[in-house]
Amino acid sequence: MTRPVLTEARAPLTRSVRTVNEFGEEESLSIPAERDLTLYVDRRELVTLMTLGAHPEWLVLGYLRNQRLVDSPDAIESVTVDWEVNAAAVKTHAGIERIEERTAHRVVTTGCGQGSVFGHMMEEIDSAPLPEARITQAQLYGIVNAIRLQESTYKSAGSVHGCALFRGEEMLLFVEDVGRHNAIDTIAGWMWLREQEAPLAPTADEPLVFYTTGRLTSEMVIKSAQMGVAVVVSRSGITQMGYEIAERIGLCAIGRATNRRFLCYTTPERLVLQPELAGTRLRAAQ
Amino acid sequence: MTRPVLTEARAPLTRSVRTVNEFGEEESLSIPAERDLTLYVDRRELVTLMTLGAHPEWLVLGYLRNQRLVDSPDAIESVTVDWEVNAAAVKTHAGIERIEERTAHRVVTTGCGQGSVFGHMMEEIDSAPLPEARITQAQLYGIVNAIRLQESTYKSAGSVHGCALFRGEEMLLFVEDVGRHNAIDTIAGWMWLREQEAPLAPTADEPLVFYTTGRLTSEMVIKSAQMGVAVVVSRSGITQMGYEIAERIGLCAIGRATNRRFLCYTTPERLVLQPELAGTRLRAAQ
Repeated sequence: MTRPVLTEARAPLTRSVRTVNEFGEEESLSIPAERDLTLYVDRRELVTLMTLGAHPEWLVLGYLRNQRLVDSPDAIESVTVDWEVNAAAVKTHAGIERIEERTAHRVVTTGCGQGSVFGHMMEEIDSAPLPEARITQAQLYGIVNAIRLQESTYKSAGSVHGCALFRGEEMLLFVEDVGRHNAIDTIAGWMWLREQEAPLAPTADEPLVFYTTGRLTSEMVIKSAQMGVAVVVSRSGITQMGYEIAERIGLCAIGRATNRRFLCYTTPERLVLQPELAGTRLRAAQ
Repeated sequence: MTRPVLTEARAPLTRSVRTVNEFGEEESLSIPAERDLTLYVDRRELVTLMTLGAHPEWLVLGYLRNQRLVDSPDAIESVTVDWEVNAAAVKTHAGIERIEERTAHRVVTTGCGQGSVFGHMMEEIDSAPLPEARITQAQLYGIVNAIRLQESTYKSAGSVHGCALFRGEEMLLFVEDVGRHNAIDTIAGWMWLREQEAPLAPTADEPLVFYTTGRLTSEMVIKSAQMGVAVVVSRSGITQMGYEIAERIGLCAIGRATNRRFLCYTTPERLVLQPELAGTRLRAAQ
């Protein structure tokens, strides 16, 4: 097992801009950074990603993982990100087989176009059953509270999506990006590296849980399943494809999760209800 | 000039699902529809779009337009959408030149991957200056109010983005989809057909204005410019690429537009301020 050599390219995550408000007054505020990052694999241009740029190396690894272009981080010699030229150069040990063919088709998903062949994604997740996993209402509230307390670019500049990976109530990683797809790909890339060192070792009662501020789209559900995560939690709602895929593969999709409120859309048998924690209807309705 | 023959495929825009809430009670609610639509051009599979499905024919036309695969609707003989097989078959009069090459590269933008080559998009909008256009604060308030009054899938089921095209305060079209990119592509497709009949005839004082509930991303700004729309309004914020491109091409980007509040991010000279309409700070702050 060899670990890829990664740069740790850094760039500012916000910039200040001048605006004019409804009173005709100038106001200065922060907006999130967004930069293009063109990905080259063994010198071949693959794609240009628009990203906040917080963790470009993990993003690149996760993109290659979720696109199913690379089977393991062992296959990757190095990821070199250079913000001077907005390029990420990936060097593999042995190249990528049939890369032209495998990057030819694409699906423009709701979350965003990620170049995967939808049918192929579905076959794959149907063939890899999700692990045994149960989340308690107490753990769910712990997750929502951890997100509430998390310092974030969203709090300072808005206009970004946040995603996080939890084991039980423990936050393993929090990632933000201008696109949800980048945030989850970044988590996928981090998981790959992390699991090279030691397994994340979730249990049925301390399961991996994926949190997103964005909607539970088909892409979010599929990528969670691809990462072996059986419980997804969102502050927002769910789309029909997200709902149907989650239901079909037995993934527990929980949305509208704010304060003590939530809606479990699918696979409620993975949710250990503790309604006594929900507070009074009055509080819940507030 | 020949008009493309279009089906008018219809499908339900919401579905009802059972959920479990924080009290362990079953709740039934509506979620937006989301379906995959695979686009075939002259029998060649091009892409699969995830869409609400309200106006699939306009979506397909707008996708081909914004991808710069077709220069005019005159080139298209028919668009046949069949929800039985989730397919959209486009027949052109003369085929599309170099379609393999032109669909080979792609950019995964923040809004979502749309397969366009970013550099090419920028060259194009740099070479086509935006029309003279000024929006008054009164018109802006009229637009925000029209959106507030609009019946929508969002109001009944949430989890969709809305986009609209205005001429001055007059709403020409309101479109929702699970993805912003689909909503704006649908507007682009509708504009193509509409302009075949008669020009939209905007003036400097009754300009075309693009409204989106979503963030002002690079994609939103670029596509607005490609459609010759110089003013974009959003309920949400702006990303850095959206800001920089809008500033560079002189597009007026207005965000955080709710009630009487807004922030003009770029090109304020296109905004005719009427601060006397902003109400008192107290009201504005509410």
